[in-house]
Amino acid sequence: MTASTAVPATGFQALNRNDVQEIWRKDHDHFLHPWTHFDSFKKDGSLIMAAAEGAYVYDASGKRYLDGIGGLWCVNIGYGRREIAEAISRQALQLAYFNPFVDTTNIPAAELAAKLAELAPGSLNHVFFTCGGSTANDTAVRLIQYYQSRRGKRDKVHVICRRDGYHGSTYLTGSMSGKPADRSPNLHFITDFVHHVSSPNVYRRPEGMSEEAFCDQLVAELEAKILELGADKVAAFFAEPVLGAGGVIVPPKGYHQKTRELCRKLDVIYVSDEVVTGFGRLGHFFASKDVFGIEPDIIICAKGLTSGYQPLGACIYSDAIHEVISAPDPDGWFTNGYTYSGHPIACAAGLANIELMEREDLCGHVREVGPYLMQQLNTLRDLPIVGDVRGHHFMMCVENVADPATKELFPDEVNIGKRIADHCERLGLIVRPIGALNIISPPLVLTRAQVDELVGILRQSIEATMKDLKAEGFMKA
Amino acid sequence: MTASTAVPATGFQALNRNDVQEIWRKDHDHFLHPWTHFDSFKKDGSLIMAAAEGAYVYDASGKRYLDGIGGLWCVNIGYGRREIAEAISRQALQLAYFNPFVDTTNIPAAELAAKLAELAPGSLNHVFFTCGGSTANDTAVRLIQYYQSRRGKRDKVHVICRRDGYHGSTYLTGSMSGKPADRSPNLHFITDFVHHVSSPNVYRRPEGMSEEAFCDQLVAELEAKILELGADKVAAFFAEPVLGAGGVIVPPKGYHQKTRELCRKLDVIYVSDEVVTGFGRLGHFFASKDVFGIEPDIIICAKGLTSGYQPLGACIYSDAIHEVISAPDPDGWFTNGYTYSGHPIACAAGLANIELMEREDLCGHVREVGPYLMQQLNTLRDLPIVGDVRGHHFMMCVENVADPATKELFPDEVNIGKRIADHCERLGLIVRPIGALNIISPPLVLTRAQVDELVGILRQSIEATMKDLKAEGFMKA
Repeated sequence: MTASTAVPATGFQALNRNDVQEIWRKDHDHFLHPWTHFDSFKKDGSLIMAAAEGAYVYDASGKRYLDGIGGLWCVNIGYGRREIAEAISRQALQLAYFNPFVDTTNIPAAELAAKLAELAPGSLNHVFFTCGGSTANDTAVRLIQYYQSRRGKRDKVHVICRRDGYHGSTYLTGSMSGKPADRSPNLHFITDFVHHVSSPNVYRRPEGMSEEAFCDQLVAELEAKILELGADKVAAFFAEPVLGAGGVIVPPKGYHQKTRELCRKLDVIYVSDEVVTGFGRLGHFFASKDVFGIEPDIIICAKGLTSGYQPLGACIYSDAIHEVISAPDPDGWFTNGYTYSGHPIACAAGLANIELMEREDLCGHVREVGPYLMQQLNTLRDLPIVGDVRGHHFMMCVENVADPATKELFPDEVNIGKRIADHCERLGLIVRPIGALNIISPPLVLTRAQVDELVGILRQSIEATMKDLKAEGFMKA
Repeated sequence: MTASTAVPATGFQALNRNDVQEIWRKDHDHFLHPWTHFDSFKKDGSLIMAAAEGAYVYDASGKRYLDGIGGLWCVNIGYGRREIAEAISRQALQLAYFNPFVDTTNIPAAELAAKLAELAPGSLNHVFFTCGGSTANDTAVRLIQYYQSRRGKRDKVHVICRRDGYHGSTYLTGSMSGKPADRSPNLHFITDFVHHVSSPNVYRRPEGMSEEAFCDQLVAELEAKILELGADKVAAFFAEPVLGAGGVIVPPKGYHQKTRELCRKLDVIYVSDEVVTGFGRLGHFFASKDVFGIEPDIIICAKGLTSGYQPLGACIYSDAIHEVISAPDPDGWFTNGYTYSGHPIACAAGLANIELMEREDLCGHVREVGPYLMQQLNTLRDLPIVGDVRGHHFMMCVENVADPATKELFPDEVNIGKRIADHCERLGLIVRPIGALNIISPPLVLTRAQVDELVGILRQSIEATMKDLKAEGFMKA
């Protein structure tokens, strides 16, 4: 055990071995996890996270880890924040729930909708709440098709997304997501109105092509795809400002503006999926306008909206869309929604989270410490298997390769990202392995000293991994 | 103002007129509600619910209402329960979030998965968590198609549901839902693998047909539909034990057993959508086995699982399914899941909710008071517009008709359910209007005295409505 066995702020006491074993068994026997890999899960089961404070999480046996992934790109304000726990518990006592259907509402939902309209760029003044990013994107598609139909464009239904994009895990949004590894050959996907164009991955662009030419090629491909389907048939383009789970891919310079303009020209709704980039991770509440200079028709957010303390997602859409869908029509019902849309406790958590972020100027903190995190992670480039270090501010990743010159990957069996993450875990740091990548998306409260701790352990772990690979013959000794 | 302006247990103080107006405006201008009816919303906006205690809710101006709908068939343990607020706030401080992807977990999720396996019938021992019923049903389809593919039946993808069924509001589950009124002509639906058979509505069965013959006809229709699509192409049948939002429809006697047997015979997965019927509403944790005597392959639950205090849904599936999907395969990943699957705070609320239900034997209370609620609601049959009173225990509805003899409905413009609900609201009772129906699904803590209060106000409201209808010429004076 490398760390203290009690977390002072939470009162958590490490469990004894038998209790840990008992929880491990319950989890192993009864909980089907997201992205379960059945063979390894059957053997190893789960690591049980039990407590957390600030930027650190503790497992059930009391071992401490620096949380380099903010829970899952979401615990932006850090763990154990009393303000949020109190807001949640106050609302649970006062009004834990009442439905927001048709013509009833609750105070936190009304307040949060107004606050989001204030924070979101331009005319994005209308909010539909869900319980996370998947359902917010799913609702966006229903809303857009509804909008197109209400303006007489009943056949304008097609949706264009990108390979390496991630938009969720409902049947529809799982189909919209374009990460090849997420498309299990045993699942089925919607293909009749969901389409994909190329990933804007600058690191993996065609050899010898300039970033500018790559950008032009991507924009031309999108235009060709819209015209191929027919501009009068294409409802929307969905794009994360920086692709998240697909590999922290920052599109080439100019891409955001050019695709946004193209969509405007061809009458295609532009949806910015800010589930990861929103709420401070890139130094602003929303990255679309403040980082990339564009104003989408719709912004999707979740995760940082409550810093993960509560399941909440939102689809924020423009006055122009609202004008069309709410135009007088006695049969005009938007027959879509969830029991937990605008859940009072989740919305109370969202309000408290935004208040805390504003009071502590966490966006300012990210703009200050983010460049330092980027700079320190870039020092890893001297390691012979680090091919790329990319991202922006608190949304970063390292791509590990067999040969940085050719960008050649290790064979799949090496499982390079997982190997490095396992060394990190041993040394007290959580990073997320996705294929050849290690994702770094820490709580936004991370200090410079914690940046040093993070990068130090990551360096040690990559070095330890290289030693293993040499011993196993995957690298020259 | 008909009631006290302060709620003692919660400390809530009624807001002044200006503050109410300000919240009303924020809601009106920024919050797109589920099932918004744009024309009337633009005019009237929302009633703001602000506090609640036991079986009563209070609006922002302090007016008290008996909550005849349990929030939305979900606040089973009643409002303001300190045990849940404390469980939530304790977990928020200790570990508000950590992701449950692949091979990490948290204690409440593991404990709740094990507890659900214990409560669910037979071999239903595996749990996938989501944030509500929609995503639990959506995941069930992905899981079933994955299962069919893993056992070599790649084309076994079709899903059969029922008209009047309700399964959620994702793009997929909105397509599976079969309430005609929910299928806005401005939305699009999946039709290539989603199919519907007839509603098992005994009240609206063909005239002169016995309940037994009606049952046989429904079962024959389902069998014909499966054979028409090809049994080797049909993945699953989705059915609520009692159809909820479609009109509290209790299928004819024998229907559950016969459809379950048919699915077994034709190798079709039987999914029991217990989002409403689960967690005590019919007097047991799950109604499938304990009320209707069948063991499904999958049970879906949500709502009562946390009594609505937290967004949480679960798909509970059988050992037989798990054996197939987890069979050795190095490429065997279930690439499905949500950031908030197994959210620690939501799962802590679920555990505290179950503990409270067990300690207070709320299922026993429902089995005792439920028959009284049914009996008292049935006394309304002497009113000349009450056509049917149906349901079971704490899941009831009244169907209002122009002529009970012919079951003829009032013209749509009368909006009969809404009229009665509006009178109830004025008199301090919330019932839910759906077309010609008024839904009654109160918190399970309802006492006999509160049953009398509920039925008394409902009677007064129906009488007041009849008076209005006579004055307007919709009924003979």
